[in-house]
Amino acid sequence: MKDFKSLLSNYKVIFFDSYGVIRNYNGLIPGIRQTFEWLQNESKPYYIITNDASRSPDLLAEKLHANGLDLIKPSQIISSGMLAKEFLDLKVKTGVVAYMGTPDSAHYIEHPGLEIIPIQEVNEKNSDQITALVLLDDEGFEWLDGINKAVNLLRWRSIPAIVANPDGAYPISKQEVGIAIGGISWMIEKITGKKFIRFGKPDSQIFMFAWEMVKAQFPDITKKDILMVGDTLHTDILGGNKFGLDTALVLTGNILPEDAETRIIGSGIAPTYICTSAVIDNQLSIYEG
Amino acid sequence: MKDFKSLLSNYKVIFFDSYGVIRNYNGLIPGIRQTFEWLQNESKPYYIITNDASRSPDLLAEKLHANGLDLIKPSQIISSGMLAKEFLDLKVKTGVVAYMGTPDSAHYIEHPGLEIIPIQEVNEKNSDQITALVLLDDEGFEWLDGINKAVNLLRWRSIPAIVANPDGAYPISKQEVGIAIGGISWMIEKITGKKFIRFGKPDSQIFMFAWEMVKAQFPDITKKDILMVGDTLHTDILGGNKFGLDTALVLTGNILPEDAETRIIGSGIAPTYICTSAVIDNQLSIYEG
Amino acid sequence: MKDFKSLLSNYKVIFFDSYGVIRNYNGLIPGIRQTFEWLQNESKPYYIITNDASRSPDLLAEKLHANGLDLIKPSQIISSGMLAKEFLDLKVKTGVVAYMGTPDSAHYIEHPGLEIIPIQEVNEKNSDQITALVLLDDEGFEWLDGINKAVNLLRWRSIPAIVANPDGAYPISKQEVGIAIGGISWMIEKITGKKFIRFGKPDSQIFMFAWEMVKAQFPDITKKDILMVGDTLHTDILGGNKFGLDTALVLTGNILPEDAETRIIGSGIAPTYICTSAVIDNQLSIYEG
Amino acid sequence: MKDFKSLLSNYKVIFFDSYGVIRNYNGLIPGIRQTFEWLQNESKPYYIITNDASRSPDLLAEKLHANGLDLIKPSQIISSGMLAKEFLDLKVKTGVVAYMGTPDSAHYIEHPGLEIIPIQEVNEKNSDQITALVLLDDEGFEWLDGINKAVNLLRWRSIPAIVANPDGAYPISKQEVGIAIGGISWMIEKITGKKFIRFGKPDSQIFMFAWEMVKAQFPDITKKDILMVGDTLHTDILGGNKFGLDTALVLTGNILPEDAETRIIGSGIAPTYICTSAVIDNQLSIYEG
Repeated sequence: MKDFKSLLSNYKVIFFDSYGVIRNYNGLIPGIRQTFEWLQNESKPYYIITNDASRSPDLLAEKLHANGLDLIKPSQIISSGMLAKEFLDLKVKTGVVAYMGTPDSAHYIEHPGLEIIPIQEVNEKNSDQITALVLLDDEGFEWLDGINKAVNLLRWRSIPAIVANPDGAYPISKQEVGIAIGGISWMIEKITGKKFIRFGKPDSQIFMFAWEMVKAQFPDITKKDILMVGDTLHTDILGGNKFGLDTALVLTGNILPEDAETRIIGSGIAPTYICTSAVIDNQLSIYEG
Repeated sequence: MKDFKSLLSNYKVIFFDSYGVIRNYNGLIPGIRQTFEWLQNESKPYYIITNDASRSPDLLAEKLHANGLDLIKPSQIISSGMLAKEFLDLKVKTGVVAYMGTPDSAHYIEHPGLEIIPIQEVNEKNSDQITALVLLDDEGFEWLDGINKAVNLLRWRSIPAIVANPDGAYPISKQEVGIAIGGISWMIEKITGKKFIRFGKPDSQIFMFAWEMVKAQFPDITKKDILMVGDTLHTDILGGNKFGLDTALVLTGNILPEDAETRIIGSGIAPTYICTSAVIDNQLSIYEG
Repeated sequence: MKDFKSLLSNYKVIFFDSYGVIRNYNGLIPGIRQTFEWLQNESKPYYIITNDASRSPDLLAEKLHANGLDLIKPSQIISSGMLAKEFLDLKVKTGVVAYMGTPDSAHYIEHPGLEIIPIQEVNEKNSDQITALVLLDDEGFEWLDGINKAVNLLRWRSIPAIVANPDGAYPISKQEVGIAIGGISWMIEKITGKKFIRFGKPDSQIFMFAWEMVKAQFPDITKKDILMVGDTLHTDILGGNKFGLDTALVLTGNILPEDAETRIIGSGIAPTYICTSAVIDNQLSIYEG
Repeated sequence: MKDFKSLLSNYKVIFFDSYGVIRNYNGLIPGIRQTFEWLQNESKPYYIITNDASRSPDLLAEKLHANGLDLIKPSQIISSGMLAKEFLDLKVKTGVVAYMGTPDSAHYIEHPGLEIIPIQEVNEKNSDQITALVLLDDEGFEWLDGINKAVNLLRWRSIPAIVANPDGAYPISKQEVGIAIGGISWMIEKITGKKFIRFGKPDSQIFMFAWEMVKAQFPDITKKDILMVGDTLHTDILGGNKFGLDTALVLTGNILPEDAETRIIGSGIAPTYICTSAVIDNQLSIYEG
């Protein structure tokens, strides 16, 4: 097998990571539109599985549309924020939920019966009413104030603390990374000793969410029929492997082509395939992981 | 609500941990038989969800029967070993699988097309054929030899390493604990730098396995209808909470009654209920977590 | 032995931690002045050994004087910043040193031949000249900007990264803690994978610094003649114990009287003595650790 | 500067690591005898600083002599076991000290007033008398029994736990490593939650021990006059750097020539020099780190 199209042809359903696979800090990965046009023509179902909880699936789709990829529908996007939402629906029925993130990210914690406040509004007086803390995005609050408030809230109150994006950092330019809310959660966890609940790849629950959507539509599908395509070993590939899916690592994001082998051997996380990109006209681009 | 029977009455399906809830190093928890007789009479479905991968569900059921609890059928037992088995079925189709554990535990990795060898038989010559390493039980191998062989195998080969019991230690008498295979996996992981795949509570995948069995039989069930009963905060309660279930901590295992509050506050892992035990005739035994 | 004065009488030299022992967020610990007057009258030498690298010994002494404790001279204060300074003197002879902290804290890295810049002034262009990164204080920079710049600097350049205060957090009021620069260093270390050099208790090097000063003045002293008085198990007591000193835990800072036993048993870090405070007129306040 | 002899000429005192620098699993590093003959002829003082606490300096010297290097005297060997010994002398004056290691390693904990027992003889009855646990060597006990006994001892008793060799693993043949007692201590620490006291490089205390011996003989020496030669980044180089010494990484042990750059960049631990080996006739072997 020599090209990405033949690889996709071997599976009935495709899961894609978004950042580093479909788009990056510069916009769409050049040529990626062809991949989704081909999937559309083939009527091959696909889903975007993303650890981006900074905005709702609607707004995530809008962003892709604005970038020139108007084929992807909100209903095809599964974000880690949706798991946080389900958790609150099931486990936190009343009270005030404090969140770290922008107002856009707060979409995921809006719920009849719950009041929500940004972390900067937490204080010694209202902390008694708070029933959960949800970390959604690294923006939307002043770090010194917000992170210290989160630490103190968890010292005062024994409440669930949820992180909807377990990533530590993400590329913001060719040279630079930005610390993600997952990285901030490591510091809060170590300082307070409190255990966070993490949703998002590599955790199985986000794959299960996608899996149940696929099964509802295609009851005969098995895990062997699904390929997970991602750019990050510790989230996309580890999570896909663990869930029992075949996995394809693409080299348009977190891992540079020259580092792939070292990173795979160093971590012991091996994809089923390694591909230069998720663009379908690539020639000679695939080898077995 | 004052007793364990009323609590069970509020749910349609019950998940139980085994060790520390149903039995311990002394045999059955006194009186626990009544709980299962009542569940049987009420036709209330229940499942045992255990991180014990030391033997097959058949043998785990046999052990409970030998202890005097003959009501529980193998088909009601979901062990973390079953997840390891599913992983191998989906992801490791050929070659030789090395395992740490007793011959009884090797049940989980028997698979047409796979050869299996205990860790003590791994050497520099046959290591080329090995396609996965599975940690099942802390017995069945001499530690110095077996743990060193596992470390070297993972240095030589970039293969999946799976742990089917994430527990660090377990009580073996009133005063003593024994290190579990999960504890051994921490040392191997830190020395080799390789990332292990961990199955078993608190990871969601074992709950999903149970959830799919329940849904197949009772399609209308929701997560709100299920109660998870366990004795360990970091596995039963954290895992149940994360999956979206209500949780009941019982004080017949890992956590002594006098420590419950400190441990819950220290870890931030809060059960929905705290009960002195899972025996149904307890009076005045429940308070909200 | 029943009071703090008799305890001090048993040792020839006393080492004190500052924050939580001599002063806290409210100013001096009430009555502490008597302790230092008595030491002065007895001509018993003492030193303040502090993880506070936010300002020079001169300014640290000034702060104690302003609080009403004018007996302590700058030459009696040994701060973790002095170790960072020694490291730069010995190991970083040229180039530009970037620092996180206030201009006051930058005192420690001023050195003929070295240029110093605050973290906020680091950019892709000047990063080539940077030869070390020193974390001194949690103030003096905007967190989002400064912490992200530190992460990227360590990704671009293989240079020594030094933390002059290993504490994770410190009390800023009766109810609240603030994250210290040591806590921030944990996050940077985990995200970048780079190993930090940590100066300050419990590390031995700060005790060695004090020890060499004591030996220069009193050549016959032995470690058995020195008592370390502190409020924090993981820094003062662990560090003092490891260096071979007798240690006294006081309960006016990080550890509440009701938690002392649990914290000692939980951590396994046992002081030689536990005292309600370092104020010398305390009655019946000491028991063996 | 092009060869190892010129490098040594630039320093007044040399510190050497032993394993991986002077000898390995095959015996002496070929040619290393010349280096010590030259040092002897030049009357340049040198010390061996080793994390090997498996036997006394006398027996460590005997082993080098048996290998053909009879120039090194026991008084020139400083082992991490000597720090453990000093700790017991200062801090543990009575009772029974339990140890993990061979009878040879127990040399370090022999002390008038202390009874010593190997870990395998600890039980519920005698554990009340035990006043410290010391980890010296990975041999001398059956692992399953010994490691479990250590875990339970630390659960029952709040006593100091000391590790005299912080290494996780060491090469035992060209292809294989063996887990060291430091690696075992990580598992015990994680399972029990108790904080260990670690002696040996990279901790400063072993360098201080050597430094005080050097100062006693050569009062005018400064840290700039000393070179630390080692094969391991996380112990020899990090420890030497932190103590303020110039450091030379040699490639005859833990780090293969082809991996040196990646390992240095990945860890951020940079030696002052990188040398192919510590053999003095090497040509063109040195470049600046």
